[in-house]
Amino acid sequence: MSTDVFPGIRLYLMRLVCKQSVLTLKELLTGCLSSQIKKATRFYVKAIEKSSPLPIISQEEVTRHRSLKDGVWVTYQGGVYDITEFVSIHPGGEKIMMAAGGAIEPFWSLYAVHNQEHVLEILSEYKIGELKAEDLKKQSTFKSSDPYSSDPERHPALRTNSLKPFNAEPPPEILADSYITPTAFFFKRNHLPVPQVDPDLYRLHVEGLPRGVLTLSLEELKTRFPKHTITATLQCAGNRRSEMNKTRQVKGLNWGFGAIGNATWSGAKLRDVLLAAGYGPDVAQWARHVQFEGLDKEITGSAYGASIPINKAVSEEGDVLLAYEMNGKDIPADHGFPIRVVVPGVVGTRNVKWLGKIVVSAQESSSHWQQKDYKGFAPGIDWDTVDYKSAPAIQELPVQSAITTPAEGSVIDRSEEMLTVKGYAWSGGGREVIRVDVSVDGGKTWKEAKLKSSDKEGDQTSPPLGRAWAWKLWEITVPLPPEAQELELICKAVDNSYNTQPDTFGPIWNVRGLLSNAWHRVKVKISEDDDEE
Amino acid sequence: MSTDVFPGIRLYLMRLVCKQSVLTLKELLTGCLSSQIKKATRFYVKAIEKSSPLPIISQEEVTRHRSLKDGVWVTYQGGVYDITEFVSIHPGGEKIMMAAGGAIEPFWSLYAVHNQEHVLEILSEYKIGELKAEDLKKQSTFKSSDPYSSDPERHPALRTNSLKPFNAEPPPEILADSYITPTAFFFKRNHLPVPQVDPDLYRLHVEGLPRGVLTLSLEELKTRFPKHTITATLQCAGNRRSEMNKTRQVKGLNWGFGAIGNATWSGAKLRDVLLAAGYGPDVAQWARHVQFEGLDKEITGSAYGASIPINKAVSEEGDVLLAYEMNGKDIPADHGFPIRVVVPGVVGTRNVKWLGKIVVSAQESSSHWQQKDYKGFAPGIDWDTVDYKSAPAIQELPVQSAITTPAEGSVIDRSEEMLTVKGYAWSGGGREVIRVDVSVDGGKTWKEAKLKSSDKEGDQTSPPLGRAWAWKLWEITVPLPPEAQELELICKAVDNSYNTQPDTFGPIWNVRGLLSNAWHRVKVKISEDDDEE
Repeated sequence: MSTDVFPGIRLYLMRLVCKQSVLTLKELLTGCLSSQIKKATRFYVKAIEKSSPLPIISQEEVTRHRSLKDGVWVTYQGGVYDITEFVSIHPGGEKIMMAAGGAIEPFWSLYAVHNQEHVLEILSEYKIGELKAEDLKKQSTFKSSDPYSSDPERHPALRTNSLKPFNAEPPPEILADSYITPTAFFFKRNHLPVPQVDPDLYRLHVEGLPRGVLTLSLEELKTRFPKHTITATLQCAGNRRSEMNKTRQVKGLNWGFGAIGNATWSGAKLRDVLLAAGYGPDVAQWARHVQFEGLDKEITGSAYGASIPINKAVSEEGDVLLAYEMNGKDIPADHGFPIRVVVPGVVGTRNVKWLGKIVVSAQESSSHWQQKDYKGFAPGIDWDTVDYKSAPAIQELPVQSAITTPAEGSVIDRSEEMLTVKGYAWSGGGREVIRVDVSVDGGKTWKEAKLKSSDKEGDQTSPPLGRAWAWKLWEITVPLPPEAQELELICKAVDNSYNTQPDTFGPIWNVRGLLSNAWHRVKVKISEDDDEE
Repeated sequence: MSTDVFPGIRLYLMRLVCKQSVLTLKELLTGCLSSQIKKATRFYVKAIEKSSPLPIISQEEVTRHRSLKDGVWVTYQGGVYDITEFVSIHPGGEKIMMAAGGAIEPFWSLYAVHNQEHVLEILSEYKIGELKAEDLKKQSTFKSSDPYSSDPERHPALRTNSLKPFNAEPPPEILADSYITPTAFFFKRNHLPVPQVDPDLYRLHVEGLPRGVLTLSLEELKTRFPKHTITATLQCAGNRRSEMNKTRQVKGLNWGFGAIGNATWSGAKLRDVLLAAGYGPDVAQWARHVQFEGLDKEITGSAYGASIPINKAVSEEGDVLLAYEMNGKDIPADHGFPIRVVVPGVVGTRNVKWLGKIVVSAQESSSHWQQKDYKGFAPGIDWDTVDYKSAPAIQELPVQSAITTPAEGSVIDRSEEMLTVKGYAWSGGGREVIRVDVSVDGGKTWKEAKLKSSDKEGDQTSPPLGRAWAWKLWEITVPLPPEAQELELICKAVDNSYNTQPDTFGPIWNVRGLLSNAWHRVKVKISEDDDEE
């Protein structure tokens, strides 16, 4: 290593003794040393920091560091951290800048995914000082109570992927046991705390139309517009991420194959509400998107948001609902009480819950979730090369299916002779699943499963063309192959555009782990009968 | 073997000597022997027949055999054939029954695929007698001239898959050289002889609507309705069948990857014509399909036919045209002069050429091509188990792409250092191709190709959502891997529903060899530079 480094370190040590800010060293390094040398220097600096007292820094000084140019500082439990270099590699993206110059605790109580040991370890690497004792005292007034404390109770059978915000899925083996997924077992995918909404005070605002804002109470939504009911499957874009993760690690909640459910939804048609608000041929000239805002809010006050294309929103056959009932009852808190948008055939994230505002616009929603999250990228793209503008926001999802029973690793008794395999299949855009192929020999041969369009035995009715919003359940019973000791079961579905699922995950791998729809594979063992007769 | 058989054979021999019809034996066998014994008997009978003169049979007797119950007899070049048992395994389906009781020659001149040695071999196994000389003489009056004699001239560069009817594709390496496929090189897929249509006498009949039949001349179609122009890709359902054939032999023309082309089409909107003919909300109550009949006819006089769902036909955004121009000129004879239906986003076969009749109906077209041909089945289904009713008629096609250059087996000079790969990509249903991934290492790693929406350099414009009717061309230039001596190039496309192509052909194999859209793979060699400097 170049000995040029040492004068810098000596200078640093000197200044430490004088209790001056470390930033002075930082400025020095940034100005004159190559990146390789900087790295080496940082190594020495860290070693020294560990054994030395850190400078005391005032809140005023911290507050001055709120940009990449001036540096990004935050405080946590009385420590001061310079996270400038971490901003670009923060898994949550630029949101981290909201915390610049202030305390990070309230954000972490909102985005509770941070409450993990390895997050603290990462943070500790960036520590540059201690916050002045009197400033630390003042901070306590900022401290909010846990915004998740009013979240509803959930069924203990759910498999929790994240507590705050709450994200959970049912045990997948129950999914194909009921055509309609019981509400309690319907997967929960919250991005923020569940807002408390008083139904009497609830107002929906419809904006962006020449007539001005239309404001509707819950009662008006229920009485002024005809009530429509559809059965529709909602699926999280991250369903089956855990399988993609096995190829190569992606970023996101580790969903199994239960982030999908099928329910009946009742409410007003979005089309009817937009027409009442003044949508017409003139608006159709310039409007391209309908934006939705939730009542679930970031700590900054900005709402969860998403948008869908205008054609889907106003089409007679689009069946987009402002739903106030799920499975025949008021929509429960976790699913968007009192109103959620149901956009059948479209990825879950656009089905905005706790709907507060509708905006007709020439533009897509500018929300993080529309612009920088739910998009699919090529397998060669990683976090260093991703260009969010290069891919469209996910709307319709591709064809999907999974085996719900038997479960991975099950042991089948040879004496049973027959094996029943069950699962679900669905496609986006209202495309009907017309076939599910099942293999019990790892994909060498395939048999066609029996499809079910309801819980009624033998129901194979088809919905109107282009409006197949609900999944199909499927089942097949096959003889156990006489020789095999282990079986690899596979399913794949075909929709009525004859699209089918890709064979493997590697070539559809993407950095966010979305759109994970390769063949579902389940390995089971066959145990030999003990008593020989 | 049971000795019960021999009395039957002895009886047969006796009758042969007396020159009585073999049918008497057949009746005897059908009545009293099990199928196994029948088989054995037939073996003996065949052996005897080969060494014995066959009975003389009158046309009157032949004509009496026109059903499975009475037996199905035909004549060919003076021979009489009992093809009853062949009917169920005839590759062309039940159409064969049209020939029952008569001469097969006129059908074979229409379906010229029969003019092959192995077809004659199969036929010879069913010979049961010789036609009476005087009846054979009379047959000559049936003999028509070659119905294909007035087919148009074609470009010699086309690769012909079948001459009568004419089916041919361009050399695929030219496909990505021009965003608009030159008409002469646009693939030709005819099911029957090209009809001769006098444009002055041409009439289009629109039927099935309460107001009665609307009849339109070509002039009226051109002047009464606004002229619309779209750019749309048409693809044969059998495109890339030859690749599927390598997995396991399928039935159908051995198309390469050139049974696809992109053209501009101009004409009246089908929607406008249907509205003029009386389509409205009342009709929408019961109408489900729009049927098309071509002026190309079977020998029986029945027309080529197909249908599309009513929603596609009447939708403002469906863009279905009654086209009279292709690439700015009158549609040529091979492509449907003077009118063909262009159903963008939908499989070629529904884009009916030489359109004679439109029928609004509650039912799909009952044509062979709608009911018993262009459907996709599971890989486990073969000709013995196929149930045509079990699959829907193909309409929208799945996502597709292919590498047009370099060609399979090309040799790349190492000194070139870079390799440019080009191709096309398209998806059905108006879904836009948003990405093409290319691998030069057999699928281990992938790079994103540059998409082109026209021949204009860098044109990446998107069509309106849901109306991406035209393909995208794509191109990528990559460094030659330094060590490799052979490269496996692969491409796969992703559309805006994030559907993608399956990895391999085995699991999408189907008995008709349709919907062949697994990854396209091309192997090339790298030759080392000879002169070492």
